[in-house]
Amino acid sequence: MTALADLKAYLRETEALTCVAERLGWDQETMMPRGAAEQRAEELAAMESVLHARRTDPRLEDWLARAEATTEAEARLLDLAGRNYNRATRIPARLATELARLTSLAQGVWAEARAAEAPAAFLPTLAQMVALKREEAACLSEGDLYDALLDDYEPGATHRVLGAMFDRMRPRLVSLREKVLGAAHQPPALDHVFPEATQLRIARICASAFGYDWTLGRLDLVVHPFCSGSGRDVRITTRVCESDPFNCLYSTIHEVGHACYEQGIAAEHALTPLGRGVSMGVHESQSRIYENQLGRSAPFTGWLYQRMVDAFGDFGVADAQAFHAVVNRVNPGFIRTEADELHYNLHVMLRFDLERQLITGKLEVADLEAAWNVRFLADFGVAVEKPSQGFLQDVHWAGGLFGYFPTYTLGNVYAGCLNRAMRAAVPGIDAALAEGSAKPATDWLRENLQRHGGLRPPRETIVTACGFEPTEEPLLDYLESKYAAIYRL
Amino acid sequence: MTALADLKAYLRETEALTCVAERLGWDQETMMPRGAAEQRAEELAAMESVLHARRTDPRLEDWLARAEATTEAEARLLDLAGRNYNRATRIPARLATELARLTSLAQGVWAEARAAEAPAAFLPTLAQMVALKREEAACLSEGDLYDALLDDYEPGATHRVLGAMFDRMRPRLVSLREKVLGAAHQPPALDHVFPEATQLRIARICASAFGYDWTLGRLDLVVHPFCSGSGRDVRITTRVCESDPFNCLYSTIHEVGHACYEQGIAAEHALTPLGRGVSMGVHESQSRIYENQLGRSAPFTGWLYQRMVDAFGDFGVADAQAFHAVVNRVNPGFIRTEADELHYNLHVMLRFDLERQLITGKLEVADLEAAWNVRFLADFGVAVEKPSQGFLQDVHWAGGLFGYFPTYTLGNVYAGCLNRAMRAAVPGIDAALAEGSAKPATDWLRENLQRHGGLRPPRETIVTACGFEPTEEPLLDYLESKYAAIYRL
Repeated sequence: MTALADLKAYLRETEALTCVAERLGWDQETMMPRGAAEQRAEELAAMESVLHARRTDPRLEDWLARAEATTEAEARLLDLAGRNYNRATRIPARLATELARLTSLAQGVWAEARAAEAPAAFLPTLAQMVALKREEAACLSEGDLYDALLDDYEPGATHRVLGAMFDRMRPRLVSLREKVLGAAHQPPALDHVFPEATQLRIARICASAFGYDWTLGRLDLVVHPFCSGSGRDVRITTRVCESDPFNCLYSTIHEVGHACYEQGIAAEHALTPLGRGVSMGVHESQSRIYENQLGRSAPFTGWLYQRMVDAFGDFGVADAQAFHAVVNRVNPGFIRTEADELHYNLHVMLRFDLERQLITGKLEVADLEAAWNVRFLADFGVAVEKPSQGFLQDVHWAGGLFGYFPTYTLGNVYAGCLNRAMRAAVPGIDAALAEGSAKPATDWLRENLQRHGGLRPPRETIVTACGFEPTEEPLLDYLESKYAAIYRL
Repeated sequence: MTALADLKAYLRETEALTCVAERLGWDQETMMPRGAAEQRAEELAAMESVLHARRTDPRLEDWLARAEATTEAEARLLDLAGRNYNRATRIPARLATELARLTSLAQGVWAEARAAEAPAAFLPTLAQMVALKREEAACLSEGDLYDALLDDYEPGATHRVLGAMFDRMRPRLVSLREKVLGAAHQPPALDHVFPEATQLRIARICASAFGYDWTLGRLDLVVHPFCSGSGRDVRITTRVCESDPFNCLYSTIHEVGHACYEQGIAAEHALTPLGRGVSMGVHESQSRIYENQLGRSAPFTGWLYQRMVDAFGDFGVADAQAFHAVVNRVNPGFIRTEADELHYNLHVMLRFDLERQLITGKLEVADLEAAWNVRFLADFGVAVEKPSQGFLQDVHWAGGLFGYFPTYTLGNVYAGCLNRAMRAAVPGIDAALAEGSAKPATDWLRENLQRHGGLRPPRETIVTACGFEPTEEPLLDYLESKYAAIYRL
């Protein structure tokens, strides 16, 4: 028992330090004075160096060899701790340093290249990044290089299973897209000014409606919204565009989904390896189900419509039904982060295929732009006009996040499954949403998924909550049925 | 050279981690959701454990033995690093843990005892604290126990020198106090409501006037104002009382004094042991000279009066001369933090004598309240009516900060000296203050004191800036001359 107790105490301190590093990241995006950036980089590097030393501490190997689990949670804790130790020790220090240096550098290079529409300025850096990520992948696994990277974000997922699922999804999405865009009835875009302070007031009301606990978090403004922290300090962020209130409101609800997951994990898992959301895909399932299946539903948008009329007066939308259509308006565009529910997954699939080809060596960095543009035309029906609309739009590859993109669509798929299971199990969800409360939904998600944190592997987490193996069907059915109603297909 | 380079790199990382821990403290007072307190305690403890391990790392001893300095700054760096290492390693781990535990506990016990006016609830904890601090002092030095603790805040200071100086100051302060309070002409108190947002707007203007660099810091609201951070991220805080705008404005100017010191340290010292203000006393000299000798001067209050009339309209003070008297109104009271410039040092001297007696064993904790009340009546002419007005008012002793109080008055004394030297050297200070700029003063302080950071020991820092050995005379002369004018003595 001593080895297990020692291990637990050590991991708890490591987790507390991880929370500190994460809060430093939050501060950087929300509060930090702009002249502090260089000093902050040294502070973050110092924290990273402390954390790396702890993750590779040789005592871990000894404790892991001697510790004996007596409960399911302890067994899982040992699994996760062993997995983390193996991943940390398999990367040579030289490679870890190289990756950290290049990641920090590449994001600046990428931002400049994007701003200047100058892909050539980014390609050599991207080529170095691909080479280092291939090297990292080879250290992590003897198997498929891409799967080795994917495993960091979605343990247990493989390109084979994901790719097959995406291949089944694409035709139905493309076909739905064509029907929607060809429909005679097209909802209008908003044309009104929505003052910032009022948007933020409504965003706070929405966050409360979805169960965000303000005693364990706060809301601040940033350029790119995110959720940060775990346990008893889970902070959300949003942004405001005065011509488009949905940007602020649905970013907020999305981040509340992430936050509710973290806030909802059972206290017994806090500051342990089980005390965080289990994977990116499962995390995204929570943000997406709050944002889309609940937040963009007719009952909730009906309630929201009345709040917006009260706050902004007549903003050019006649009634709740028209408002529901405006909120769910399908709008083809180049940018993933601005995409509607229908186009979003097509954006992800494109990136999945290209990044996999880069990592497996089937696509050269020099050919990436052309490959992107050909594929975009095929899937979206429009030609990319400049790199910032195309392969330079996302920071992920500059940040070394290969294998991250597919978890977005996996999250949507999981959200579809959870929505189906939840609605079969809980009768009053729509009635409560129509009154501005997601409580029955949050209660079900908390009980069946959120509270378990990392207790089970990602896919098992979803199966336990849903009672069935996840597939893309519920998501596609939901999208087809929703757009059929709105677009009168 | 390798030992010195290794030592420098190690200390730089330690200093970066210290900045992180400090920012965590800032977050706790300004941003942290209230439900996060317990988790935050674990985060802080984890950081403290990392920092303690680094401060006592045996490699330091080896580097210190082998490193050779080639410049004044390097020699001082080795001095400070050696001193810090010795202090850290002299405290046994058991005592450090006990002190950390009791300090965290005692502040809660103190807060409850103060709120309930129940000193008996605090005395056992205070007795434990005194015992632990005596033990700590004995580990740190073979000499005087109180001096060993004082040395943490004001290296090189001794109770003998400070006590003798305080003994010279007290009669002149008590005599001035009696004349001022007996004067026929008494400035009125303010009787008006000053809205929060406007106060904060003027506070920001004042901060800029005193040279605060907003690209390297920010201003937030807290319960007890403080300044946090060093180098390129130095944050200030203030509070607002709508009936008393001076609370907000002069708290802000005071913290700007601390912040300008940190922001003004030469970049070459950043993230080294020389990269912070050299002692509490020297730090307080900067906050006090900004707040008092500059901020409460007739030229600056004349400028401020006009800003306040513009912002608040007629608030019941006829002209700039009357306003200067209101700002400098002497108001006997029980609470140190609300004291005017005249009473403040009497508050400090009382605490200095009592805490020294506690640490040297000449006063028992059980007799502290009675001793406080007798002394207060003698120095202030009024009887303490309840413990929260008396010996329970300050958090310092509950926080284990024995030896801290005298640095407040030492800071005032140093501010008096610096003010005399600066005004002899720089002709245009009052003219600039009358225009709302402390630039000539800040420029002189930066050049002669702030930029050096920890390059020289505290007293030498003051001597170098002033060109003479510091004494209490300039402060007392300044106070007597100022109050003679305002109170027409």
